[in-house]
Amino acid sequence: MSAPDTRLEEALAAYLDVPPAAVPGPDSVGVVSPRSITFSEPLQLASGAAFGPYSLTVETYGTLNAARSNAVLVCHALNASHHVAGISAQDPSDVGWWDNMVGPGKPVDTNRFFVIGINNLGSCFGSTGPASIDPATGRPYGASFPVVTVEDWVNAQARVADMLGIERFAAVMGGSLGGMQALSWAIAYPERVAHCVVIASTPRLSAQNIAFNEVARRAIITDPEFHGGDFYAHGAIPRRGLAVARMIGHITYLSGDDMAEKFGRAQRAPAADGAFRYGYDVEFEVESYLRYQGEKFSRYFDANTYLLITRALDYFDPAKSTGGDLARALAPVQAEFLLTSFTTDWRFPPSCSREIVQALLRNGRPVTYAEIDAPHGHDAFLLDDRRYHAVVRAYYDRIAGQLGLGAAEGRP
Amino acid sequence: MSAPDTRLEEALAAYLDVPPAAVPGPDSVGVVSPRSITFSEPLQLASGAAFGPYSLTVETYGTLNAARSNAVLVCHALNASHHVAGISAQDPSDVGWWDNMVGPGKPVDTNRFFVIGINNLGSCFGSTGPASIDPATGRPYGASFPVVTVEDWVNAQARVADMLGIERFAAVMGGSLGGMQALSWAIAYPERVAHCVVIASTPRLSAQNIAFNEVARRAIITDPEFHGGDFYAHGAIPRRGLAVARMIGHITYLSGDDMAEKFGRAQRAPAADGAFRYGYDVEFEVESYLRYQGEKFSRYFDANTYLLITRALDYFDPAKSTGGDLARALAPVQAEFLLTSFTTDWRFPPSCSREIVQALLRNGRPVTYAEIDAPHGHDAFLLDDRRYHAVVRAYYDRIAGQLGLGAAEGRP
Repeated sequence: MSAPDTRLEEALAAYLDVPPAAVPGPDSVGVVSPRSITFSEPLQLASGAAFGPYSLTVETYGTLNAARSNAVLVCHALNASHHVAGISAQDPSDVGWWDNMVGPGKPVDTNRFFVIGINNLGSCFGSTGPASIDPATGRPYGASFPVVTVEDWVNAQARVADMLGIERFAAVMGGSLGGMQALSWAIAYPERVAHCVVIASTPRLSAQNIAFNEVARRAIITDPEFHGGDFYAHGAIPRRGLAVARMIGHITYLSGDDMAEKFGRAQRAPAADGAFRYGYDVEFEVESYLRYQGEKFSRYFDANTYLLITRALDYFDPAKSTGGDLARALAPVQAEFLLTSFTTDWRFPPSCSREIVQALLRNGRPVTYAEIDAPHGHDAFLLDDRRYHAVVRAYYDRIAGQLGLGAAEGRP
Repeated sequence: MSAPDTRLEEALAAYLDVPPAAVPGPDSVGVVSPRSITFSEPLQLASGAAFGPYSLTVETYGTLNAARSNAVLVCHALNASHHVAGISAQDPSDVGWWDNMVGPGKPVDTNRFFVIGINNLGSCFGSTGPASIDPATGRPYGASFPVVTVEDWVNAQARVADMLGIERFAAVMGGSLGGMQALSWAIAYPERVAHCVVIASTPRLSAQNIAFNEVARRAIITDPEFHGGDFYAHGAIPRRGLAVARMIGHITYLSGDDMAEKFGRAQRAPAADGAFRYGYDVEFEVESYLRYQGEKFSRYFDANTYLLITRALDYFDPAKSTGGDLARALAPVQAEFLLTSFTTDWRFPPSCSREIVQALLRNGRPVTYAEIDAPHGHDAFLLDDRRYHAVVRAYYDRIAGQLGLGAAEGRP
């Protein structure tokens, strides 16, 4: 990731009518590089604290049109980043997390739309986060990094939009935690969001959701290498806790049926007669898979960021300020909505999306809702399901029609 | 728990026609004391190893009749023990884990039945387990304690039955892992089980079930205080890992709706205006509850036992030896069955019990099956649900009728 040194004017210029560095095929945004934008003015947080200066890492695809009316903000979930689509210039194996959704000719067509990915404040992929150096002390923030909320992220994203001269987004979209940000945008900045695309999300975490987050946090916090959040100074990393946290999370992203289909009770390297090995090493394929996921995650993700993002999830509850009345919380909304849920998602099941749909309808908002019968659980929102992508594509076609966006504005 | 010194004859005498030490009310078995029985002959294990000598801690309620036909074996689940009913003589606050089910006038009526609870081999409530001293080394077994299976436990229980002179049980029963033992009894010792009562159980763990077990084990094994299983010698206890393991398990025992009902998003000690405190300490009631459960568990449960029992769960799969054909695996069964499942149990959902029912019916076995509409998830099997208990009571009435057992055999 580049250092936080880009000046605002330069950043703005960089996004206007500059094609991606390389376009290897018709269905990819090609090789992309992020940019870092520094904000010197502190950000006022929900907690009451003010935080700054800070930098956000941003990546864009497609071209912002002259009217600046074709911008789409894609908000990321727990372990993702600004790198939404394309191939990282720094690492050719690093393909964007929603590359099947965003690109030329893809459901969110970068021939028509200018797509922006922003790594959230507190994350660990370039934006200022707990592992960053606090200029006041010369040491990593660690435990002193403030708790941030979905609403704080949205405010930080709005500043990026200001800087890019985007007064109104054609759409703000996201899946899971990203969907919470999209919903929060529509509430906090109603006049700045034409369309809101909320996928596999929820108006608030359930007690069970919070419980899983809390176990993950306990695994990290009670890891002796965590050192109260200041592990950087100790040259330590709470890898064991992070791995366990990721394993817990991973189970909740998949459906039980999907795990049964993928792994079942298949054994890992059984004896010729299929006998068990009677020990606590990997015996079943599903164990191997989970250990691998946990191990991999613990090598690149920051432990404090994990705490911070799961807490932002816990706190999200727009109806908290309206006595639990979600319809009243959504009263300011002016956007049109697409909501999508997946039948086997037991993390944020369809009933969560339906609750948002009902609250929007009670406010007379136009809503399109698709409940996709998909076997892949919560993770389905990241996968290339034909019907799901067809719905999103059709919706973005409508947005393009409404806003009078032709194909390939500014260049073929 | 008493030391493993009781001789076989003494143990046998102790169980015959000796009333419980005290009976404080008509609906309790009263104050009870366990006894320890030592087996000098090694037990042949599924893994190929032979283990012994060993001791098992046993508790009984009611009176074995002269025909020795009224014995009921109650098999315990993960964190339970031989202490099924009544009040522990050692600790008056320690009430048996199934005290609402077993006692005078209760569904399993100790005025008619002689009920036996056995702490399984490898557990940590008195029977020989990883924390016990290995006479060969003078040190705790720790990591050298063998992996045991459900079938091994059943064989060990059969030796207790031999010793008590019980050729055939009126019933073998259990919930969850206890239900697996009951099912395994009916397969391994068909002529010794008149009735088999399998509650909230499954013919095998799913990939998701194994995944949750594996995360729990990783939390324990990667705790630096685990010392490869030999933490006793280091004066250490992997409490952090155990607490996380228990928290994970606990979430799977409750239904999402039950957690929502019990805790919802209620905050723990919020500010007067209901504001969050923006930190990683307990913020929600559900966090407080889970931390408490984890902490409590880590103070009394043995880490190696947790590994051993979750592994026994993983391995249980009677149809493994019949190419996945459960009906064929159950072909030897002679018992009549009662199976019960609970609608909101997402750990072992009703479909698991139905699979056993179908396999038994394919063998022409008499089966009673009740699917109870209960909100409490897997833990429902431990709770005092009126309809559930009515089903079990009626079934035991039928057993008593079949076997010609009057009320209060031997004494009023």
